[in-house]
Amino acid sequence: MDIADLSARILACERRALARAITLVESQRADHRDLANALLETLAKANRQALRIGLSGTPGVGKSTFIESFGLMLTAQGLKVAVLAVDPSSARTGGSILGDKTRMDLLARDPNAFIRPSPSQTHLGGVARRTREAVALCEAAGYDVVLVETVGVGQSETMVAEICDLFALLLAPAGGDELQGVKRGIMEMADLILVNKADGDFKPAAARTCSDYAGALRLMRKRPQDPQGFPKAMMVSALTRDGLKDAWAQMQTLTDWRRDNGFWTSRRADQARFWFDQELRHALLARLDDPAIQAQITDLSQQVSNNTITPAAAASTILARLDHS
Amino acid sequence: MDIADLSARILACERRALARAITLVESQRADHRDLANALLETLAKANRQALRIGLSGTPGVGKSTFIESFGLMLTAQGLKVAVLAVDPSSARTGGSILGDKTRMDLLARDPNAFIRPSPSQTHLGGVARRTREAVALCEAAGYDVVLVETVGVGQSETMVAEICDLFALLLAPAGGDELQGVKRGIMEMADLILVNKADGDFKPAAARTCSDYAGALRLMRKRPQDPQGFPKAMMVSALTRDGLKDAWAQMQTLTDWRRDNGFWTSRRADQARFWFDQELRHALLARLDDPAIQAQITDLSQQVSNNTITPAAAASTILARLDHS
Repeated sequence: MDIADLSARILACERRALARAITLVESQRADHRDLANALLETLAKANRQALRIGLSGTPGVGKSTFIESFGLMLTAQGLKVAVLAVDPSSARTGGSILGDKTRMDLLARDPNAFIRPSPSQTHLGGVARRTREAVALCEAAGYDVVLVETVGVGQSETMVAEICDLFALLLAPAGGDELQGVKRGIMEMADLILVNKADGDFKPAAARTCSDYAGALRLMRKRPQDPQGFPKAMMVSALTRDGLKDAWAQMQTLTDWRRDNGFWTSRRADQARFWFDQELRHALLARLDDPAIQAQITDLSQQVSNNTITPAAAASTILARLDHS
Repeated sequence: MDIADLSARILACERRALARAITLVESQRADHRDLANALLETLAKANRQALRIGLSGTPGVGKSTFIESFGLMLTAQGLKVAVLAVDPSSARTGGSILGDKTRMDLLARDPNAFIRPSPSQTHLGGVARRTREAVALCEAAGYDVVLVETVGVGQSETMVAEICDLFALLLAPAGGDELQGVKRGIMEMADLILVNKADGDFKPAAARTCSDYAGALRLMRKRPQDPQGFPKAMMVSALTRDGLKDAWAQMQTLTDWRRDNGFWTSRRADQARFWFDQELRHALLARLDDPAIQAQITDLSQQVSNNTITPAAAASTILARLDHS
């Protein structure tokens, strides 16, 4: 594989080259990993940055429709949009290769949009590490906005927040006065809460839900990285496209303020350190994947479960083996 | 330190020797770790087993009073009781050395009881690893029952369940019909739900709470490791000591059934394998604690945050360094 050539094609925004590069970073082969690292190093020199938007929402809130409408609005403004996913359920089932594209039919056919489903790996950590690199590839290809979507299950949001510049939570109008069981930790990550389906019969319920969340956000501790009025709850309709322009305007206001006040840079620096730590732990633990080590682990597990060796002593045995191999 | 002598004194149930051995397993010094491993290996040969009871309950449910009353009831029957703690908050503050003993004044002065506060380490994983070894030391010293208490915050319960043979959840009577926000995951771990304070004015509320939980338990999926009627909700009063004998009888019924049906042995074997995995990961990651490596990590973190090296490439640099050191 010619990394210089692939790099040039990505910088020229060839979508096939981008897709191929993402496949490369997702590969679990050691030689592919070396190539992926070299490619990412080369592309980092171009120093291109997109606005990275994390978007979370449980199934049923209309996430795909929102991404399609929002993405088409952005491409209509001449912006280039990439959509990536961190989907732990798809990771479990081995990934749905076509699922994400068929859900967003119009956006998928837009020449200024690029849609890529979640990498199919067994661990959320692995999915997130590779998605972060896919985001970097999209930035190098000149995409202006990268949307990283995930399902509202907790840990994947934390990972997506460590990839993105801002985090939006998409909700459906709720019946009662309950806050739909949104976990506090996820609320605390949100920069924007978007109450979707604010159209037709749902509009009054959406207004009520929006007002409930606005109240809840006001009760939360002020974060240094927020200008006055943020985090913010607002209504949108992916169906009628009402509110989408305003949502985008709010994202820009927030982003401009954070850039001007140093938070954009400091957040990206913090995130880079976070991923360095993640990569380091992962690479270190990957040493246990060696087949000979695995065989010894299986043998020692048996002894440990028979109580003929303590867990700590068994661990020391493996560590000593790693030292002398 | 003479491990053979210390081992003999522990087997003779000298409390000072036991306390000293627990301090040894809690030490973070590498030479102490080697001694601790040698001691645990020696003591494992005695193959003594206690009934390990995990006990969780949020502050205010009367956990200390319950442990004192329950412990005194057991010692009055001629049983030897050890009380250990996995307390993530104490881990955060550096540990309260006398706290646990002063809370359980009568039990602490009982010659057949041994009380030890939570080890003061920064990570829950470290606290739990060392507590598991302290439990093994108490078993070698001939304690019949080892109570491992923790506060109801989620992850520490999972750790305690991986140490114990059975898991009891202590609750206070609730006002309404709400299930006190007990997390589903914790409910699913419980073998016994003990509604405390079933005395005086609280008795009707305790009966209602007990019945609510009994209903919730019936709705849960049947677990293979449970005999008919388990998991079970029951009322106790740590104050009047009502229900404590019955709670103990239920624990014995459950334990006898599990022993007879192979679940005691298989659970201990599973737990040993779990802790082998934990020890192995911890020991491997501990290689990054070397001062020279830490210095290089700090340097690379700076470069990573300046975007002059990618996180994956920085991680590869450290890994290569570990290989050649």
